[in-house]
Amino acid sequence: MTQENHIIFYTHVFSPYCHRVEIALKVVKAEYTPYKIDFLYKPAWFVPKVNPAGKIPVITYGPKGAPEDPPPEAARINESLVILEFLADLYPEANLLPSDPVLAAQARLFILAYEPKGPEAFINFFFKYQHTENAEKAFIDSLELVQSRLPPTGFAVGEFSNADISVAPFVVRAELFLSKDWGTYPKGDGSRIFELYQSPKFARLKKYVEDIKGHPGFQAAWDEPRQTALWAKAPIFKRE
Amino acid sequence: MTQENHIIFYTHVFSPYCHRVEIALKVVKAEYTPYKIDFLYKPAWFVPKVNPAGKIPVITYGPKGAPEDPPPEAARINESLVILEFLADLYPEANLLPSDPVLAAQARLFILAYEPKGPEAFINFFFKYQHTENAEKAFIDSLELVQSRLPPTGFAVGEFSNADISVAPFVVRAELFLSKDWGTYPKGDGSRIFELYQSPKFARLKKYVEDIKGHPGFQAAWDEPRQTALWAKAPIFKRE
Repeated sequence: MTQENHIIFYTHVFSPYCHRVEIALKVVKAEYTPYKIDFLYKPAWFVPKVNPAGKIPVITYGPKGAPEDPPPEAARINESLVILEFLADLYPEANLLPSDPVLAAQARLFILAYEPKGPEAFINFFFKYQHTENAEKAFIDSLELVQSRLPPTGFAVGEFSNADISVAPFVVRAELFLSKDWGTYPKGDGSRIFELYQSPKFARLKKYVEDIKGHPGFQAAWDEPRQTALWAKAPIFKRE
Repeated sequence: MTQENHIIFYTHVFSPYCHRVEIALKVVKAEYTPYKIDFLYKPAWFVPKVNPAGKIPVITYGPKGAPEDPPPEAARINESLVILEFLADLYPEANLLPSDPVLAAQARLFILAYEPKGPEAFINFFFKYQHTENAEKAFIDSLELVQSRLPPTGFAVGEFSNADISVAPFVVRAELFLSKDWGTYPKGDGSRIFELYQSPKFARLKKYVEDIKGHPGFQAAWDEPRQTALWAKAPIFKRE
């Protein structure tokens, strides 16, 4: 099946949701065609031909075709978490989910505990112009939640899995942004929370983020110097 | 695995979330011990010994033990949708999810389109005392959403699957409650919407609900005369 069918991956380097899919594609070692979609200036064909919801990430899976005009027979699959499950089904030998059903359930419970509040808290804290104290609290709570669900060492449920892939794009970006004081919050708020993040309170989470950054699948989908350079120029982080 | 390990299913007949799990257990023909949890008067051991979140449904899966004191080695799995995935993994031959990864992805997209807004709209419309026009609109929208995602005939993605199981408890109860004008809304609102539900506008959804009610797995988990008798006495539906 994987030899006859081809994956086109519509993505953008800024999107943590797309990043989830990219990590999973690297872990399963899929062959695929990446195609960049600028979400502020989407090409006119994207909504009618690829995703009526207009969002990324989305993948097509089927006979080969041009990204601008994928064959109608190719399946369109959107929603990052559904794509992760799809890749787990398509590449069972890659163990994106543990083969033990109990461990797989624990991976899904980990994901569901974080979703959708964790990503929302991340976005509200770093990107919303109307910054509130609630946004800061919700963001710190989301970090605490991830930490509270981790075992004493290692990844969320044993081997690196969809559970880790689901949170990785958010916690890794959070660490980077806080370290640079990047965000729409008042100057200094990021640095203050970065100190908290480096304190013993978050030692377990910090080690977890380090472990994620050391995983080959994650490394294949994260170019930190490039991300740093791109975000350094991001208009949304420009302060007067 | 299924012979060595035993499932205890903590449930209540009123809960549509528990009902999802019960349907799935019947479809896979699992042997299990049901245990009734009254969610207003939970037994003291339930939170410390079974589910710290205090919610149902939850299942334990492992060595046999008393429901009041399940063995520590038994896994605790909560969240109805995670339990459905778990049962699909544990009983692959029962096809709770299609074996084709693309169809399985479509089943999960169907579920994700309905969740969490559909169940919330159901609960707000039938059970909240502060009834608003928004609640009625959100509820009707949720019915339209399910209908809009159905193929011209049959179940959501071919054979009866977790996709259908996820919406069945809500749409079947909705039909029953509307037909009786049961709900916390002003008298007559349910009957009015039941007329709309019976009009051509909702013909496809009505047929779908009929198909669900005709499926043996659903029938094994739904006793309509008993449900009708129980809800007829439900204090929340009593009007002055």
